[in-house]
Amino acid sequence: MSFRSGRHFLQIPGPTNGPDRVLRAIDRPTIDHRGPDFAQLGLEVLAGLRGVFRTDGPVVVYPASGTGAWEAALVNTLSPGDKVLAFETGHFATLWRTMAERFGLEVEWVPGDWRHGADPERAEAVLRAEPGIRAVMVVHNETSTGVTSRVPEVRAAIDAAGSDALLLVDVISSLGSIDYRHDEWGVDVTVGGSQKGLMLPAGLSFNAVGEKALEASRSARLPRSYWDWEPIVEANRSGFWPYTSATNLLYGLREALAMLSEEGLENVFARHARHDAGGGGGLGAGGAVRGLARALRLADGDPDGRRVRRRRGPARDPRALRHVARRGAREAGRRVFRIGHLGDFNDLMLAGTLCGVEMGLRIAGVPLAGSGVEAALALLEAEPEPGGSADADGAVVRQAAAEPAA
Amino acid sequence: MSFRSGRHFLQIPGPTNGPDRVLRAIDRPTIDHRGPDFAQLGLEVLAGLRGVFRTDGPVVVYPASGTGAWEAALVNTLSPGDKVLAFETGHFATLWRTMAERFGLEVEWVPGDWRHGADPERAEAVLRAEPGIRAVMVVHNETSTGVTSRVPEVRAAIDAAGSDALLLVDVISSLGSIDYRHDEWGVDVTVGGSQKGLMLPAGLSFNAVGEKALEASRSARLPRSYWDWEPIVEANRSGFWPYTSATNLLYGLREALAMLSEEGLENVFARHARHDAGGGGGLGAGGAVRGLARALRLADGDPDGRRVRRRRGPARDPRALRHVARRGAREAGRRVFRIGHLGDFNDLMLAGTLCGVEMGLRIAGVPLAGSGVEAALALLEAEPEPGGSADADGAVVRQAAAEPAA
Amino acid sequence: MSFRSGRHFLQIPGPTNGPDRVLRAIDRPTIDHRGPDFAQLGLEVLAGLRGVFRTDGPVVVYPASGTGAWEAALVNTLSPGDKVLAFETGHFATLWRTMAERFGLEVEWVPGDWRHGADPERAEAVLRAEPGIRAVMVVHNETSTGVTSRVPEVRAAIDAAGSDALLLVDVISSLGSIDYRHDEWGVDVTVGGSQKGLMLPAGLSFNAVGEKALEASRSARLPRSYWDWEPIVEANRSGFWPYTSATNLLYGLREALAMLSEEGLENVFARHARHDAGGGGGLGAGGAVRGLARALRLADGDPDGRRVRRRRGPARDPRALRHVARRGAREAGRRVFRIGHLGDFNDLMLAGTLCGVEMGLRIAGVPLAGSGVEAALALLEAEPEPGGSADADGAVVRQAAAEPAA
Amino acid sequence: MSFRSGRHFLQIPGPTNGPDRVLRAIDRPTIDHRGPDFAQLGLEVLAGLRGVFRTDGPVVVYPASGTGAWEAALVNTLSPGDKVLAFETGHFATLWRTMAERFGLEVEWVPGDWRHGADPERAEAVLRAEPGIRAVMVVHNETSTGVTSRVPEVRAAIDAAGSDALLLVDVISSLGSIDYRHDEWGVDVTVGGSQKGLMLPAGLSFNAVGEKALEASRSARLPRSYWDWEPIVEANRSGFWPYTSATNLLYGLREALAMLSEEGLENVFARHARHDAGGGGGLGAGGAVRGLARALRLADGDPDGRRVRRRRGPARDPRALRHVARRGAREAGRRVFRIGHLGDFNDLMLAGTLCGVEMGLRIAGVPLAGSGVEAALALLEAEPEPGGSADADGAVVRQAAAEPAA
Repeated sequence: MSFRSGRHFLQIPGPTNGPDRVLRAIDRPTIDHRGPDFAQLGLEVLAGLRGVFRTDGPVVVYPASGTGAWEAALVNTLSPGDKVLAFETGHFATLWRTMAERFGLEVEWVPGDWRHGADPERAEAVLRAEPGIRAVMVVHNETSTGVTSRVPEVRAAIDAAGSDALLLVDVISSLGSIDYRHDEWGVDVTVGGSQKGLMLPAGLSFNAVGEKALEASRSARLPRSYWDWEPIVEANRSGFWPYTSATNLLYGLREALAMLSEEGLENVFARHARHDAGGGGGLGAGGAVRGLARALRLADGDPDGRRVRRRRGPARDPRALRHVARRGAREAGRRVFRIGHLGDFNDLMLAGTLCGVEMGLRIAGVPLAGSGVEAALALLEAEPEPGGSADADGAVVRQAAAEPAA
Repeated sequence: MSFRSGRHFLQIPGPTNGPDRVLRAIDRPTIDHRGPDFAQLGLEVLAGLRGVFRTDGPVVVYPASGTGAWEAALVNTLSPGDKVLAFETGHFATLWRTMAERFGLEVEWVPGDWRHGADPERAEAVLRAEPGIRAVMVVHNETSTGVTSRVPEVRAAIDAAGSDALLLVDVISSLGSIDYRHDEWGVDVTVGGSQKGLMLPAGLSFNAVGEKALEASRSARLPRSYWDWEPIVEANRSGFWPYTSATNLLYGLREALAMLSEEGLENVFARHARHDAGGGGGLGAGGAVRGLARALRLADGDPDGRRVRRRRGPARDPRALRHVARRGAREAGRRVFRIGHLGDFNDLMLAGTLCGVEMGLRIAGVPLAGSGVEAALALLEAEPEPGGSADADGAVVRQAAAEPAA
Repeated sequence: MSFRSGRHFLQIPGPTNGPDRVLRAIDRPTIDHRGPDFAQLGLEVLAGLRGVFRTDGPVVVYPASGTGAWEAALVNTLSPGDKVLAFETGHFATLWRTMAERFGLEVEWVPGDWRHGADPERAEAVLRAEPGIRAVMVVHNETSTGVTSRVPEVRAAIDAAGSDALLLVDVISSLGSIDYRHDEWGVDVTVGGSQKGLMLPAGLSFNAVGEKALEASRSARLPRSYWDWEPIVEANRSGFWPYTSATNLLYGLREALAMLSEEGLENVFARHARHDAGGGGGLGAGGAVRGLARALRLADGDPDGRRVRRRRGPARDPRALRHVARRGAREAGRRVFRIGHLGDFNDLMLAGTLCGVEMGLRIAGVPLAGSGVEAALALLEAEPEPGGSADADGAVVRQAAAEPAA
Repeated sequence: MSFRSGRHFLQIPGPTNGPDRVLRAIDRPTIDHRGPDFAQLGLEVLAGLRGVFRTDGPVVVYPASGTGAWEAALVNTLSPGDKVLAFETGHFATLWRTMAERFGLEVEWVPGDWRHGADPERAEAVLRAEPGIRAVMVVHNETSTGVTSRVPEVRAAIDAAGSDALLLVDVISSLGSIDYRHDEWGVDVTVGGSQKGLMLPAGLSFNAVGEKALEASRSARLPRSYWDWEPIVEANRSGFWPYTSATNLLYGLREALAMLSEEGLENVFARHARHDAGGGGGLGAGGAVRGLARALRLADGDPDGRRVRRRRGPARDPRALRHVARRGAREAGRRVFRIGHLGDFNDLMLAGTLCGVEMGLRIAGVPLAGSGVEAALALLEAEPEPGGSADADGAVVRQAAAEPAA
């Protein structure tokens, strides 16, 4: 590759920027995965994960990508031919559906326009009509579109329908970024990943498992071995895993959990909301990204979602498009691009990203309604971030006073 | 944990000592797993892996522990109710058998004494008697016992029996440590892991896939999604993976492959053989560990295996036993302990380990026949390692001459 | 300290952002500073330094801050009571003068307004008037003010005056950032540091030494031991140092030199010029920082300098001032703040910094003439950086095409 | 260089093995050296250093090698022509003397045989005879020979002679390794370095400064600027330095001080004494290295020193000598080699080193009286190290019980 100076801005809707603290934590010699130091590490990360998932029950950790944890949620709870309910809220909901079908499950598929979350009313109606449905699969926050589903309302719909279906929720891109409560919201299996709000490289994924799901796993008949919860939950009691653990990623996880705890989950959520396009999912009504989008007339508001979308696609040079991509956004389709702002992120990183987007769009010849960056900065200025993301410096004034004025 | 100074000696039969070069390589910001820099990384590690597995065919990489790659080998090639042949060569062979049974396969199990590898003659006899057997599962080197199976002879036995069974081989603890040749030996699926000879932390595992196995995967009916070879092999053509890759472990893998290439695989094998107990698997007849064992009268020679075993278990203090463990060995059973010497390892690390073992045994009150360390050192001295593992220094003599003599 | 998420923007006029590659290089076990691997390291960094200083002569490396290398330049070339000529171009020129006086040198001091570089005409006049002057001390680029001195013209002035004074030049904040040529410009001693254009942490400093300076050192009578060039130049012939070297910083130096070489010094200079305020020292007439300053009516143009200065200091809240500082600038005096943009830096880092400055000024209630960020972005857009500082991605378009459009 | 696998054993009498914790701490982005986070770092390391030097007074930190701190001790306290007393205890004492002479000091030199420390009786006699002596220079532990001087007795001698000479002590290779007490022993300036007991890379050095030395610095007339204590002590009050600090090495220093504090200085001293050759300086009478030496008939006991010396130099092949060097020892002269065992070190690292020495000597054809390794191990076994340096594992026994016995 050609030489590129300076720090790379990785604002894709994939893995988030890994903080140095986490990378350095990973960069340590492996210890014996059967020794007492490991047990301490294991118990510590398992306790921390329960805090992030907001559950008192077990959180199963897999050395696997998020799709592995999807598979685990299915094979631990269901049997061949079982019916499940799923909603077309975006690309990943569609992929999860395909996976379910490969395991011989019968998927009741509620089509959607990728611009709305799972519809609780529709869920209730389907569950009343199909009482045999064994599980409802919901993607909390769709990475592909930014659409958020209202999980507690889906739970209420299941209950209202008198269904005993399990509620399986994918929080891969919402965990540690927007409010989520496994126990309080009555979720049965929560599927998480390491590479977004947890600020780790990809390579670990999770199942938070409720009591009812654990019970279901005892009679579920889809074949399973690697994903089987039981031996893992059993070994976890003393801080171990039945297989050779991905110890170095667990070091990183411990550090990431410490960072989330130091900042405070509520503060993390507020930070992302400030940066966000605002909108659904309990977030404030208009963060910096949405400010940019509005000013550029790129936004297509949607009470359920947080999407940044351009309405009419002007003719443009593909090479110029790449300039857009180069400058901090990833194009997710012909008329949409996405800006990742989860994880270890602050005002100046966001500002740099938005400048890159605006420069890129202009270079690409996209007609813009105004200065989106100025609009976004105005929103950030209105309530400056605590601590600041550049040198906070009481000493500055003193030092300044000591130097001759120009 | 209490403070411990100095570098920890991790000589367990689990993950090996990770070299600093590999840890530092992992400790880098994640890049876009859909961008051109990633493609270059992907193509580079896939090419390197083919060199280590000695195959021209695809090597599938999973973010998973080795047991995941075991599962992948089964679900990609077999259908419910299929018959497979397996050999009791140790703990891991037994675990793999259990996994096969969980997937509804019928396992023809050849019992063993954990002191001999898979018996080719017995294999041929069973395959003749049971022509419906679809696969033969062999653990190349049993981590639990050090027993090595002669893979080419198993292949010859399958062919001699006129069977079209696939040969599935677990090389988790032999890959990159002792000679192995996927293509030349006619193996259909080779199952590897990252944490031994590849010197990485655990978290990646592999399937090297032969043409016949790929063909079998097209009609195999065990349900699969995460482990499915097809989309991975397809995406790999351009250097990508269909899921979010464990990019940071791939950075480490690239560095580890570079190290194996710089040292030369043949030199790596020779280094391990020098340190080894010697014995089967094509290794030299007596390395340093075996020298120690012989001198201490701990060894129980076995032409097929490389086991270090104590014959009679004297009464001893369990607390003292832990002293043994503390000093570089892990106890695998009441009468056996194991010394890990794979991966990034040299003469002085081995010497320190053997000293720890001998001190530990003496502290534990185990009667010893003589000085095992001296015996081992004598073997190492006979042919010093090239380069040396401490400061090689032509300048020493010059500097020495320049300083006043005492 | 309170928790701060995201990457810190260190845009002070002190050490620059250290690239990860350099930090990782430093993070390696120390090797024997008398062994052959060290000699190779030593010879390699010494060769690389000669390339950056543009000299064929020796470059002496000290484990010391830049002020140490100032001292070295004086004590190696001068004797008690010697006369030297120096110019008041800013804070650091003044400090260097004080140092000279502490060593009993008699300083001919040309006062200045901190807004112009060393005046060649004035230099010639003084040298004619004082033929006994033994050295001329010039700060190439004043960190405190951004003022650049025209070194070749100072050399010409010395020659025109018929003086045999040595030319001592401080390039601490210009080396590896703007064009500098030790040999071609006839400099006798060049004083450099590690923490700016060389992208290292502070801790190493340098003297590039010309033939005439080396000759002068043989008769110079200021006492010296640690700073003495002779034993260092002698030991350097074989790649060693006479003292215990700061090996880990040398690892970092090797990596930084490799980065400068990969990017190409000319490209590095062009990159900084694009980001710069433009102006003197051979730079282009108007980079992004100057664009911001002009738009905000903060700039006070000066053909010799590159200063960002606010003309009239409005009353303002000191707490708000700190907000400015927090957002990427450091206040150097009551009416000046400075933005560091040397070292490992790119467009999006600069854009984030400028956004921080503008937000900070607005929060501080400073009346601004317009949007400086927009002005700066327009300048950067006019000629996009090669390669880009965010994900460059040919694959984006392909992937986009493969995903359903929203 | 040729490829070398495994961890390098750096047991030279130069920099010690840097622990990973310290290297990782150094590998962090630099922060503003004028900001509040830096002040916290500064105050923390200065407090920690006072603990290690055992002083309540200031400890001045220089970005410099140890020879820089030697120079600082002289130029801050003395004036041209001053008389100082020094002792020939080895190579470094001799170098320090040469430095003093370069600064125009008159050195009263007490010749020695490199096998005894500074002689207090002789000191008293000289001081009585030469009442004008202004300083006494003592090397606490001679790196070149291992000879230790009894500092409190030298202090007593100065007092007994009625002299007001300052006591300057070099603790470069003893600080953090053997007991040392700046205040209690009445030392005026203590000169330390970062690369031995402090487990850092080279690059920082220290002056602990007593009240009387501070007073002397006010009238001392050797020219100084970089080394001047006053502005540093002044800036240190608020945690800063007057120059650009070597921040990353300070990160490492903070971590190293934390490690020394976690282990406890007394435990560190005991650990080194166990490994040591025993002998003078308050150490126990016979550690492991001395055990080896005795068994090999290499030792030449000396109540004042800890030297490992071979009596008669047999004819031998220079190439073989390098084998010795390669295996963990550095030859310091024709008849001496030295084994470094300070810093982050444990039993198994020592055992590996001693095995390397013994193998090397045998390969070199040196006739040995017996097995030195066995003798050394016996001494280590007699009192095992707390915690152990390999996997301490209560879980081992449980796991062992769960696996089938072979």
